[in-house]
Amino acid sequence: MRLSQFHLATVKEVPAEAEIASHQLMLRAGMIRKLASGLYTWSPLGLRVLRKVEQIVREEMNRAGAIEMLMPSVQPRELWEETGRWEKFGGQLLKIKDRKEQEFCYGPTHEEVVTDFARNELKSYKQLPVNFYQIQTKFRDEIRPRFGVMRAREFLMKDAYSFHLDQASLAETYEAMYQAYTRIFTRLGLKFRAVQADTGAIGGNASHEFQVLADSGEDAIVFSDGSDYAANVEKAEALAPAVTRPAPATALQRAETPRVRSVEDVTRHFGITADRVLKTVLVRGKDGGLVALCLRGDHDINEVKAAKLAELPDESVLASEEEILAAVGTRPGFIGPVGLPDSIPVIVDRSAAVLADFVCGGNANDAHYTGANWERDARITRVEDIRQVVAGDPSPDGHGQLRFARGIEVGHVFQLGSKYAQALDATVLDDQGKKQVMLMGCYGIGVSRIVAAAIEQRHDEAGILWPEAMAPWRVAVCVINPKHAPDVNAAAESLYNELVARGIETVWDDRGLRPGAMFADMELIGIPHRVVVSERGLGAGTLEYRARDAAESLAITRDELLELLG
Amino acid sequence: MRLSQFHLATVKEVPAEAEIASHQLMLRAGMIRKLASGLYTWSPLGLRVLRKVEQIVREEMNRAGAIEMLMPSVQPRELWEETGRWEKFGGQLLKIKDRKEQEFCYGPTHEEVVTDFARNELKSYKQLPVNFYQIQTKFRDEIRPRFGVMRAREFLMKDAYSFHLDQASLAETYEAMYQAYTRIFTRLGLKFRAVQADTGAIGGNASHEFQVLADSGEDAIVFSDGSDYAANVEKAEALAPAVTRPAPATALQRAETPRVRSVEDVTRHFGITADRVLKTVLVRGKDGGLVALCLRGDHDINEVKAAKLAELPDESVLASEEEILAAVGTRPGFIGPVGLPDSIPVIVDRSAAVLADFVCGGNANDAHYTGANWERDARITRVEDIRQVVAGDPSPDGHGQLRFARGIEVGHVFQLGSKYAQALDATVLDDQGKKQVMLMGCYGIGVSRIVAAAIEQRHDEAGILWPEAMAPWRVAVCVINPKHAPDVNAAAESLYNELVARGIETVWDDRGLRPGAMFADMELIGIPHRVVVSERGLGAGTLEYRARDAAESLAITRDELLELLG
Repeated sequence: MRLSQFHLATVKEVPAEAEIASHQLMLRAGMIRKLASGLYTWSPLGLRVLRKVEQIVREEMNRAGAIEMLMPSVQPRELWEETGRWEKFGGQLLKIKDRKEQEFCYGPTHEEVVTDFARNELKSYKQLPVNFYQIQTKFRDEIRPRFGVMRAREFLMKDAYSFHLDQASLAETYEAMYQAYTRIFTRLGLKFRAVQADTGAIGGNASHEFQVLADSGEDAIVFSDGSDYAANVEKAEALAPAVTRPAPATALQRAETPRVRSVEDVTRHFGITADRVLKTVLVRGKDGGLVALCLRGDHDINEVKAAKLAELPDESVLASEEEILAAVGTRPGFIGPVGLPDSIPVIVDRSAAVLADFVCGGNANDAHYTGANWERDARITRVEDIRQVVAGDPSPDGHGQLRFARGIEVGHVFQLGSKYAQALDATVLDDQGKKQVMLMGCYGIGVSRIVAAAIEQRHDEAGILWPEAMAPWRVAVCVINPKHAPDVNAAAESLYNELVARGIETVWDDRGLRPGAMFADMELIGIPHRVVVSERGLGAGTLEYRARDAAESLAITRDELLELLG
Repeated sequence: MRLSQFHLATVKEVPAEAEIASHQLMLRAGMIRKLASGLYTWSPLGLRVLRKVEQIVREEMNRAGAIEMLMPSVQPRELWEETGRWEKFGGQLLKIKDRKEQEFCYGPTHEEVVTDFARNELKSYKQLPVNFYQIQTKFRDEIRPRFGVMRAREFLMKDAYSFHLDQASLAETYEAMYQAYTRIFTRLGLKFRAVQADTGAIGGNASHEFQVLADSGEDAIVFSDGSDYAANVEKAEALAPAVTRPAPATALQRAETPRVRSVEDVTRHFGITADRVLKTVLVRGKDGGLVALCLRGDHDINEVKAAKLAELPDESVLASEEEILAAVGTRPGFIGPVGLPDSIPVIVDRSAAVLADFVCGGNANDAHYTGANWERDARITRVEDIRQVVAGDPSPDGHGQLRFARGIEVGHVFQLGSKYAQALDATVLDDQGKKQVMLMGCYGIGVSRIVAAAIEQRHDEAGILWPEAMAPWRVAVCVINPKHAPDVNAAAESLYNELVARGIETVWDDRGLRPGAMFADMELIGIPHRVVVSERGLGAGTLEYRARDAAESLAITRDELLELLG
């Protein structure tokens, strides 16, 4: 591509509205332009990158045996009523009324539509397994769209849905998708981790998120330094400590503790570390009564784990001050398991359960206990894993210790099980002629989000550092002073033609800009390889080559360049 | 592709709701499935065809120097207010409110968005000309969606928009797009015509429609049998007859004509042909008064031409019975130019203006005139071309006679001029540093509609006849009795592998169906070349080859087959 025949429109100023690097750089490189909140136009430059991601995703999906199709973006309300999601999906669902006052939504996802397609198309187990996918524009009416295409309202997604007669078949396709995703992100040239994820309310059997690693990532993930274990922090199990609980060594004593409410206050007041403090949180249980959750003072509750306790609803709610006063007779900050009314179950975290002689709230205003011990002073209803893991925790697979990283979720594979097929009555006849509800898997990739995630992972002061597979062009040919040195221009053109003939995607910057402005543009838009053709170089028989991530440029011959670019 | 690993779901029954061949065949072939009124899922088979069309469109747009980008499908109301189209576009505009009660539409076209992009991105004449395009899902809330994807609500379109400093540049890009479209439809293997089209209310300088020829087409087009002239019937000029008006030969006479109202009644009553009858239509003028349009009895009014008369509004409206009674004192059916009140302008069609001694209405109930003559008996305000052309009319370019054909509009190129750039204040600085409103062209192709149009043009009793460029696969390899003849199966596999290795898109029907069902499927889905591998053929060293459009199959060797397929 000759750049003079392309529309490149870089911007010098850092856009004020852009908070994160990828948003800033995509605007500065002119890859995207905002049309309205959460709505972006992909410029020619941006679209080149987006299409590269799309194509790699498509190739690997096809290789894994998935079959591409295309469903409408506008979906009728009736289908969403069948699964109950018309209401349940919430405000992100962009609802539409057509001219006949029929209700539709702009599809944020396609479980309903694909399951409807499947219940009409699939009649026999002989047609299974099958894995349909599409690459398509979706819409989620985010309450606060931000970070450019990272959390846009309209976005490009690859979504796949597989159908199965049994769990073994589902597990097989799930594994094939896991491998396909691994190939996709590897081919894209990104550092990523596949992490175990929580299956949430859907309650499927397995779920992994694919996270592009970046310090700016919204998601906290943990991984083992001694194995390939990796998980979403909400999913990561905190093992029970290998020690058993010591026997009580001190007597229970009541202490007056005015204005001592937080764990920090307690450690300061008693001169102890937070891992000797027991904190107790009262939450509202499923039946309306209160439930006590007890953790070590240095640990935090994991709400996803808590929500799975039989006593608690799907979304746990802290008890109000009034509820606590009524049930325990004290304000929050002084709660503890000692002497708690019998009606309140006491769920103790595994790490808290091995404490002895600990400090805890006194269940009265301005009072704590020291030397408290389980069983002797306080009952345990059940020991559970209810905390967030912390760095240094043993890895749940028994190998190594957990470390933390930040990630950007760009893919998700999920064993849905029968949830949607059941709701929509999507059945096939098995080999006995009996109707069976199909099992489903779903597999999403945020195609447009990958572009932003890659920039978050790979950029420097000057701009973007694209991996080769995602770059708008692999090579930029720059000419110094083409107007005043026709032979230099001819040499650049000849080099450009040869690179193109060899199938190397090349952009020739023939705009006639000053070198500084030209180089700044090529660095900003992140072209991996830059070659400069100049009069001086021609005289010496060399070209000036610089890799985008190299500190210095090299004088190399044309043959050396061609070898280097393969 | 092995068909057992694909999702093919053909249907035997002709679907009751499908009125036209393409809709029936796309449903029977399982290319599309209806989700809701005007909303269709493209199955894997359908999508293969759609993508082929899309790719040819993309390649030719790129070759013509257009630059691909991607705009949001959801567009803010504010932009549409700037051009006045939020109201004017009418019910086809699918309006949406987001969670913040902001108004948007699902884009039916992108003039507003692209002009907004251009006014932000283009600052200097040096950036011009530029031609942006996208291939994207659009939505038009058709009042009566029908004919499958031919008139769907959600559809795939290629839309391009070019920006220019002057008319010469616009004309040049327009011509380049005209040539690109010609290449696209030629490569697709379709019979088509580029016809001159009316520029309508936008009033640009030039417009052509690209029409795929098919008897079932909604559009009437005319073309010359003696030149390459072709036009939309609304646009085609009716030349003035080469004769001059004869002098009056008979006297004006009034005749009592009860129940003689239509032209047909008149011809029967007076025993004359319709080309001797003058019919007069009263329409409402711009200023509210009436205007008389006079045509020969065998001609029809062309409303597009009429709308261009200075006296008439953009959409002409017939005068009501009350208006006619009030102005002329008679019911419709007896109107004529003789003695019409002076306040009513009399616009006479070119062909009607050379009539002499004609019959016309008497401007009184149950009365006609015979022997009427212009000037002597009736005044002419102006002679204009206001009629539809008919077969046999001389071609407007002076070569040959006009003939009629039916077409399906699949493309449209249009010189918009400054309409949108003016409304949105999209300007650049010219070489004098002066602000200039840009000129624009727009160029659309209905990608999904092309698929249906091709089927309308190319099908038979058994199914679709794809042109090679659009076929889901070029070749189908069918095996007879694979289970009972392993060597036959091996031969089929070897042939399949060789075809694939040669880059020939091939589907191997390895589903194990009976030959009849297998052949019927391959004919229904329109594969251009079918090869049958059978035990008998193997013994004779031949394959059974049949072109989709051939009456008979041929026994040919493998080498002959490979040569034939190129």
